[in-house]
Amino acid sequence: MTGNSTHRVVIVGGGFGGLMAAQKLAGSGLDITLIDRRNHHLFQPLLYQVATAALTTSDIAWPIRSLVRGKNDIKTLLGSVAGVDKEARQVILEDGARVPYDSLILATGARHAYFGHDEWEPNAPGLKTLEDATAIRRRLLLAFEQAEREPDEARRKALLTFVIIGAGPTGVELAGTIVELAEASLRGEFRNIRPEEARVVLIEAADRVLLNFVPELSAYALEALRKLGVEVELGHAVTEIDPSGVVYGGKRLETKTVIWAAGVQASPAAKWLGVESDRAGRVKVNPDLTVPGYPDIFVIGDTALALRADGRPVPGVGDAAKQGGKHAAATIKARVAGETPPTFVYKHAGDLATIGKRAAVIDFGWLKLKGFLAWWVWGVAHIYFLIGVKNRLFVSITWLLQLLSGRRSARLITQGDASGRWEHRP
Amino acid sequence: MTGNSTHRVVIVGGGFGGLMAAQKLAGSGLDITLIDRRNHHLFQPLLYQVATAALTTSDIAWPIRSLVRGKNDIKTLLGSVAGVDKEARQVILEDGARVPYDSLILATGARHAYFGHDEWEPNAPGLKTLEDATAIRRRLLLAFEQAEREPDEARRKALLTFVIIGAGPTGVELAGTIVELAEASLRGEFRNIRPEEARVVLIEAADRVLLNFVPELSAYALEALRKLGVEVELGHAVTEIDPSGVVYGGKRLETKTVIWAAGVQASPAAKWLGVESDRAGRVKVNPDLTVPGYPDIFVIGDTALALRADGRPVPGVGDAAKQGGKHAAATIKARVAGETPPTFVYKHAGDLATIGKRAAVIDFGWLKLKGFLAWWVWGVAHIYFLIGVKNRLFVSITWLLQLLSGRRSARLITQGDASGRWEHRP
Repeated sequence: MTGNSTHRVVIVGGGFGGLMAAQKLAGSGLDITLIDRRNHHLFQPLLYQVATAALTTSDIAWPIRSLVRGKNDIKTLLGSVAGVDKEARQVILEDGARVPYDSLILATGARHAYFGHDEWEPNAPGLKTLEDATAIRRRLLLAFEQAEREPDEARRKALLTFVIIGAGPTGVELAGTIVELAEASLRGEFRNIRPEEARVVLIEAADRVLLNFVPELSAYALEALRKLGVEVELGHAVTEIDPSGVVYGGKRLETKTVIWAAGVQASPAAKWLGVESDRAGRVKVNPDLTVPGYPDIFVIGDTALALRADGRPVPGVGDAAKQGGKHAAATIKARVAGETPPTFVYKHAGDLATIGKRAAVIDFGWLKLKGFLAWWVWGVAHIYFLIGVKNRLFVSITWLLQLLSGRRSARLITQGDASGRWEHRP
Repeated sequence: MTGNSTHRVVIVGGGFGGLMAAQKLAGSGLDITLIDRRNHHLFQPLLYQVATAALTTSDIAWPIRSLVRGKNDIKTLLGSVAGVDKEARQVILEDGARVPYDSLILATGARHAYFGHDEWEPNAPGLKTLEDATAIRRRLLLAFEQAEREPDEARRKALLTFVIIGAGPTGVELAGTIVELAEASLRGEFRNIRPEEARVVLIEAADRVLLNFVPELSAYALEALRKLGVEVELGHAVTEIDPSGVVYGGKRLETKTVIWAAGVQASPAAKWLGVESDRAGRVKVNPDLTVPGYPDIFVIGDTALALRADGRPVPGVGDAAKQGGKHAAATIKARVAGETPPTFVYKHAGDLATIGKRAAVIDFGWLKLKGFLAWWVWGVAHIYFLIGVKNRLFVSITWLLQLLSGRRSARLITQGDASGRWEHRP
């Protein structure tokens, strides 16, 4: 917003990509503005642990402005973007304010998508924000509470049936953790129901779980899920979701709790820019992550469709967003310095997913791991990626106590109707 | 709900009083049902620390059913009470379910009250539940975010003015902590404002703060507050609260954030019972905490008006509720055993309040403390009263880190409008 000649970079989104870009640009003599509609950076890979009452919200979220505290060339703004004026080079906020830029980085992520069935959302919430996580936690815990008070057996069974749609990492991790919530954490605390008898059903349209892994690890994960007690239904697309159940493969399953982990839709960055997007709403970007025709605009992370040299898309994972942020920052710095910008080459670090607290699958390409050792590697890696000593310490202790006792510390039903009614439901 | 001849005790409310009653009754061969509309017990004395982003929700709240996990004679129900059928001896829940009792303990607490000005609530929220705390946290943090983006100086000043109404322990603790939030935690993180210039105004109708303490400690607390930078306005009742300010003593103060800590109203237990209550809605109980004419119904804690031998009321503090719960449990056990019930004699343990993180006042009657030593005693006492090793450890570490660095770990704006608009406000 200053009128001087310093090159102004505006970054929209304080997730993995945007935050990385801001950190890499800091100290380069540029005028950096980081805009997010949330005040916090979120470590999404552990969001399912908040949804299942294992971790608390502040374990995996940090105020963005505290993360760039010492970097005086970064200005953090809480605001929602409504559009981009590409000609005037201004980001337009919802309240009408305009933030001018010389370079723009859009790193606004994705939300869950219902493939044309938006009417399913109230009955099958997805998991992308802290509020999503506490809402799912409320539903899970309320289902057990209501089952305890339900005299009708069929309705009690429906309350104790939990359906997860989509067997990617989030779906697999949720399914495993819900079984453990019921079996280890809630066992022995109810008088009319046995929480360990809860059914957890994981429905996947493809013919295997964890499609992004090699088939061998998918097979192991399937076996580990079934051993935990998860009912895995492969090769069935869900065709109906209503307040009392789901239909898949022609079968109806009565359930009061459905979680959606089956697909994502990019943020409306393509609409703000008025440019081409794919079916998932992702902006089709050049190999250097800029928007065709607008070399001053970068789109990175889940909201971009970037193709690798072999034609495969860069995957929608946190590490790809970070690499994108790093690349955009380096390109802007090189341009300002009059140097040749680097070429973007995405390096896939690997895929990780846990199945409960005893097993995981890891595919680093050069190294494939499964089982309890993989679970430890996963745990250590995730603690490493958390920010700050305190969060690492608290999450480590929490996981250790859970491993030993099965108890969960964040089993709070909040923001819901205290009478036990479903929010959003008739 | 069983039809056998075991004496059935129903306890409504899982706060300090109800939980104590349940724990004392457990193992006595009775059939105990504990009903709460929340699934968690809350350590209310530290709620102001959640509201000011120092602690996170799960630090001070525990699932009620996990607290009575091993006690198989206690059944925990999540439900809202709608009434009591005194003749049929049944508690009526909101969904129409009826829970029969032989003895009933109502321990349903209090909410904040606006002395006939309920229209003030949207502009001056109170602090009694976890949701209240996260809502106040959101308002406090949003005010700084909005001030950072506000070009108009007068409006920026109003955004950076925080008003607390009522200088009891909650009001005093909030005022001191908000100053520290601004001065120690947010300092250096903004570019357009200086958070440490925020004004914190504490308004009290009486002529001193902390009325429940001896005047000497009130005077010390006043001095400590002023030293911290809190503007204390004594002897002024607030006469108007609207979305843009408050009026007290004929003066208008422009502010966007008002917190109400000036009065409470008992839960509607008197209405459920159809019995006499005082102006604050408290049920006037016999010296043994039973309801006149209904020796099988006890009302304890903040929702009861119990008089001590000298005619002074038992105060509305957590320890009084615990003593009430203990007494009701002992009385029921004695009656079932055919023994003489004990007499209730309230013993006042003392009063504690902190002023920021460097000072506190403590009045144990036989011992009066103030200053940094009192703050340590307060801290140790509160950690002792938390439940579980993990919570004690986490709160200790959090406080220690805050004492050293001033940083706060739970600075999350959640459940609010991401665009930065006020919820509840036009």
